[in-house]
Amino acid sequence: MSESESEPESAESIAVVLPDGSELEVPEDATVEDCAYEIGPGLGRDTVAGKLDGELVAKEEPVSDGVELEIVTDGSEAYLRVMRHSASHCLAQAVERHYDDVDLAIGPPTDDGFYYDFDNLEIDEADLADLEAEIEEIVEADYEIEREDVSIEEAEDRLADEPYKLELLSEFADENEQVSFYRQGEWEDLCAGPHVDSTGEIGAVDLLEIAGAYWRGDEENTMQTRIYGTAFEDESDLEEYLERRQEAQERDHRRIGNEMNLFSIQDVTGPGLPLYHPPGKTVLKELEAFVEDLNEDAGYDYVETPHVFKTDLWHRSGHYENYEDDMFIFDVGDDEFGLKPMNCPGHAAIFQDQSWSYRDLPIRYAENGKVYRKEQRGELSGLSRVWAFTIDDGHLFVSPEGIEAEVEAIMDMIVDVLETFDLEYEMALATRPEKSAGSDEIWEQAESQLESVLEKRDLEYDLEEGDGAFYGPKIDFAFEDAIGRSWDGPTVQLDFNMPERFDLSYVGEDNEEHRPVMIHRALYGSYERFFMMLIEHYEGNFPLWLAPEQIRVLPISDANLEYASEIADRFDAFRVEVDDRDSTLERKIRAAHDDRVPYQIIVGDNEEEAGNISVRDRFEDQEYDVEIDAFEAHLEAERDEKRTEPDFLQ
Amino acid sequence: MSESESEPESAESIAVVLPDGSELEVPEDATVEDCAYEIGPGLGRDTVAGKLDGELVAKEEPVSDGVELEIVTDGSEAYLRVMRHSASHCLAQAVERHYDDVDLAIGPPTDDGFYYDFDNLEIDEADLADLEAEIEEIVEADYEIEREDVSIEEAEDRLADEPYKLELLSEFADENEQVSFYRQGEWEDLCAGPHVDSTGEIGAVDLLEIAGAYWRGDEENTMQTRIYGTAFEDESDLEEYLERRQEAQERDHRRIGNEMNLFSIQDVTGPGLPLYHPPGKTVLKELEAFVEDLNEDAGYDYVETPHVFKTDLWHRSGHYENYEDDMFIFDVGDDEFGLKPMNCPGHAAIFQDQSWSYRDLPIRYAENGKVYRKEQRGELSGLSRVWAFTIDDGHLFVSPEGIEAEVEAIMDMIVDVLETFDLEYEMALATRPEKSAGSDEIWEQAESQLESVLEKRDLEYDLEEGDGAFYGPKIDFAFEDAIGRSWDGPTVQLDFNMPERFDLSYVGEDNEEHRPVMIHRALYGSYERFFMMLIEHYEGNFPLWLAPEQIRVLPISDANLEYASEIADRFDAFRVEVDDRDSTLERKIRAAHDDRVPYQIIVGDNEEEAGNISVRDRFEDQEYDVEIDAFEAHLEAERDEKRTEPDFLQ
Repeated sequence: MSESESEPESAESIAVVLPDGSELEVPEDATVEDCAYEIGPGLGRDTVAGKLDGELVAKEEPVSDGVELEIVTDGSEAYLRVMRHSASHCLAQAVERHYDDVDLAIGPPTDDGFYYDFDNLEIDEADLADLEAEIEEIVEADYEIEREDVSIEEAEDRLADEPYKLELLSEFADENEQVSFYRQGEWEDLCAGPHVDSTGEIGAVDLLEIAGAYWRGDEENTMQTRIYGTAFEDESDLEEYLERRQEAQERDHRRIGNEMNLFSIQDVTGPGLPLYHPPGKTVLKELEAFVEDLNEDAGYDYVETPHVFKTDLWHRSGHYENYEDDMFIFDVGDDEFGLKPMNCPGHAAIFQDQSWSYRDLPIRYAENGKVYRKEQRGELSGLSRVWAFTIDDGHLFVSPEGIEAEVEAIMDMIVDVLETFDLEYEMALATRPEKSAGSDEIWEQAESQLESVLEKRDLEYDLEEGDGAFYGPKIDFAFEDAIGRSWDGPTVQLDFNMPERFDLSYVGEDNEEHRPVMIHRALYGSYERFFMMLIEHYEGNFPLWLAPEQIRVLPISDANLEYASEIADRFDAFRVEVDDRDSTLERKIRAAHDDRVPYQIIVGDNEEEAGNISVRDRFEDQEYDVEIDAFEAHLEAERDEKRTEPDFLQ
Repeated sequence: MSESESEPESAESIAVVLPDGSELEVPEDATVEDCAYEIGPGLGRDTVAGKLDGELVAKEEPVSDGVELEIVTDGSEAYLRVMRHSASHCLAQAVERHYDDVDLAIGPPTDDGFYYDFDNLEIDEADLADLEAEIEEIVEADYEIEREDVSIEEAEDRLADEPYKLELLSEFADENEQVSFYRQGEWEDLCAGPHVDSTGEIGAVDLLEIAGAYWRGDEENTMQTRIYGTAFEDESDLEEYLERRQEAQERDHRRIGNEMNLFSIQDVTGPGLPLYHPPGKTVLKELEAFVEDLNEDAGYDYVETPHVFKTDLWHRSGHYENYEDDMFIFDVGDDEFGLKPMNCPGHAAIFQDQSWSYRDLPIRYAENGKVYRKEQRGELSGLSRVWAFTIDDGHLFVSPEGIEAEVEAIMDMIVDVLETFDLEYEMALATRPEKSAGSDEIWEQAESQLESVLEKRDLEYDLEEGDGAFYGPKIDFAFEDAIGRSWDGPTVQLDFNMPERFDLSYVGEDNEEHRPVMIHRALYGSYERFFMMLIEHYEGNFPLWLAPEQIRVLPISDANLEYASEIADRFDAFRVEVDDRDSTLERKIRAAHDDRVPYQIIVGDNEEEAGNISVRDRFEDQEYDVEIDAFEAHLEAERDEKRTEPDFLQ
């Protein structure tokens, strides 16, 4: 560029990249909204906000050369987010109308709603209705929502009574000369936006619950009052969401886990460290046995590695650099030790301890391996976010030519698992990213084998180009539970890097040393998370093979106690209990139902005389005069085939 | 005591307590030897040393009022210890005759021999014969071994060239005005004794091996040269010992563990933290499954507790006070966490999380629970001393009346386990010590129930009065392995203290709250130690049910490969491999034998034509024309009955 060309011009043009990949030339000082008008005046008028390189920003935000721009209009997910942000302002406005001397903290949108944090606010759930009514009035008043950019000094004046806002402002002040306020009616807030144009645009709002939250998520700080809410474009969307939320709450694994005595997380023992009670451990053991059978059939060998390693191992594997902050680390004498955040380096160390020939490959190690991740305490929740979780981990050491056969076998196992639990799934292939370890040859060889596996199955999959890990491509599964929630599922991850770091090798047919490829795979992933998902997926109504108590025998009266106990013995290949309490049959049936026992066997004088039983299932269906052998044969089949519902009476 | 009575007298008398409980009056300044002469002149002359309150001391040591005194004469275990101490002096004397400028460190007796540590000594195993010859000369010279008490200053002069001795001396100097030397011939050593009277009394001596050892066991210090030896009263005792040692070395689990690829302990992963390779994990899994079956039959429920707990739990259980130094402890935020040294508090926390009725008891929790003990690095060895080991732990919560039935059931399980492994055992009942927790009533009730269990079995047991833990009485097992070594075995330990500390309770028939008794029990104890013992007990020749590889099929030639693989498939209920290497049958047989495979199936043209097999066992017996079904039926019985030796051909 010559000197003359670099002279400043009043409106030198820049180019932004639109979602279809095309470029749009706009003046250097153009905002998101200007770009929209440049595309067309209709779009310009409809613009609510923009996304710059994926980040949601106000329509007043200037664009820069080369940025990827997406215009946000109503009806989109991004629009919903903007509207919920505005709804959180309405909440704060309503609160300040109803309560004096409240201090405002922050009020962002979330994935399915919004919240606002307040200090010095005394409120309980009963007060939410009044606030909802106030919000409705604010919406009906249809205040224009106006943005105003002001100097830091001006902002300080406006926020003189808001200590938390001042703290935030002091941080913005380091990088910005101006900050923005959003005003609606008599109320305004320090806020970067974006927001909808007026409060009237906000659809249906609902306030959900009140919780405590530390200022900035730090336990050292004040505990504030957080009000959660959500907003949708119309009432019916809101209703649908609230129903689903209600359903999810009824299925909450913490509640059901407590009711069924599956696990506990206790103050005295520590956060994020679940204790499994007998019924919970029973389910876990069945889950373990299932993958153990799959692993053994597929030629895996179980190994066992310690939970504690010298951190030398993590330096060698490279995990130390990336995971140090999330690891539990402590010194013993002069050495540093850590709880393992991953099982793979331990398996690599076992592989490395021997010499191998191509005839030995593939080597397949399996371990129910506990790993530790130091999550923030505030993030811990039931079994879904814990400090210690067990992975049904598997690591394979294969020749580069052997990838396809092994990945195919792993896919079969994964599909087997997902189908056993009636989980609908999707797959995606993530390929080589820009920065990667390993030669072109190995990447091409590996990716073509993965593609070949996927095409052979004749199933649709997403291609996520460039989204692989730097150390290898992978196939990801995602699945949907009974109430339509989506979960990250199993992964088959190739790894060209760990074998380098551990200098793993085998002697090939050519008598030369070769580098194996490592494959990481898990069928459930984390037992804790999978167990949690299953509890909610089944609402605690586990299939027969998983149910902690499979059968309960209910004697109609004390006179039938002996027969009841004979029947229980007869079914001792199952987890069976006798309800020998002094209670009515109706109550016993209710109790068995509440305890989510798949089958009840009811025995009274009639059954005892006839030498048969009555069978009742969890759907409240009942059959009399059932032959014991026939029921047993059915139960064995139902259990061994891992059917998802009790179907003797269906 | 009046003033006049407290006036010093030249020989006021004191009383020592003899082994039979009687008291012996002796003058206040009497030595061990004086006491012996007081009992009788014969004993006086034979006295080599004494034990004061169980501690071995020189016969010149003065006794004190009320001390328990035992006179040591030859033929006793204590005498052997004294003689070995003298032998270690002969070793040091021999070393100083053969090597210049050696620095002496320490040279104590051990349980089965002695060692001496030297600095600036360059020596290898080949040189030990010369030293043995020199020791023999010293013994034949029959030097009198003389004790001499000297002042600290005098000692400093004598040890001017011995830096390590001076370091020791400086510590003695704080508490003593005099120290003792023992001289034999031209050589003397700073030493508290005791020693035999002359070098001629030392029987048969053998130097065993050379090892490195840190001065005072501290890795920060100089690595010195340690020479191990042993001594016995006569040659035949020594020979017997050496044979047994040789046998133990051949069975060393570290060697066999490496040969069989059972486990590894690697530098990069850390000390005392074994990694189990597939064959080792296979054995462990069988061991786990065995106790799991026993536990399930006996009505235990499995639970799972974290490896990491907030140390609050250990404060509550009382382990913190006692185990803090042996625990791995680290901070997370403001809280202190630790790896669990015991499983019981976790189980108590699970019990405590629910309310219980007397009808629910006994509650029996089982867990293969890993525990952590921070042993000194120098103490760690293979699987016998580790940092992390798994206990097949069980904790029962019973009513005070329910102790007997539960202890009886536990004893049955323990005996079942020990007999399964062909281990001869002894039992001992340890009763209430002087200081104890819990009421007289509960102790009496508990002890009488334990006695009743033992008497019912009509088996001999030792009564160790006062040897129970402060929190409850216990029954200890000890067993003997195949080469006659004795091992601490399973324990049934009652506990009246933990239920108090955790405030555990159940509602009794009387509708009142009651305190349950806790029973700690393990069948194997530590899997690591039991596995190690089994490896040495069986010399790696595991019974069929435990063998990592149960059957190897050996095709006589490549032409029989297909038939071999058919046969392998036929036996796929077992862990079976085909030796498909290009090798002679003789070599394949040798390899299978070296790999300790219980059974070989040999198939050649004859077998293939006849549709049968030849079977060879690890005793090198072979049978031709074996019907496949018959062999399979035998194998199933041999495995399922857990027979200790392959007996198809026996």
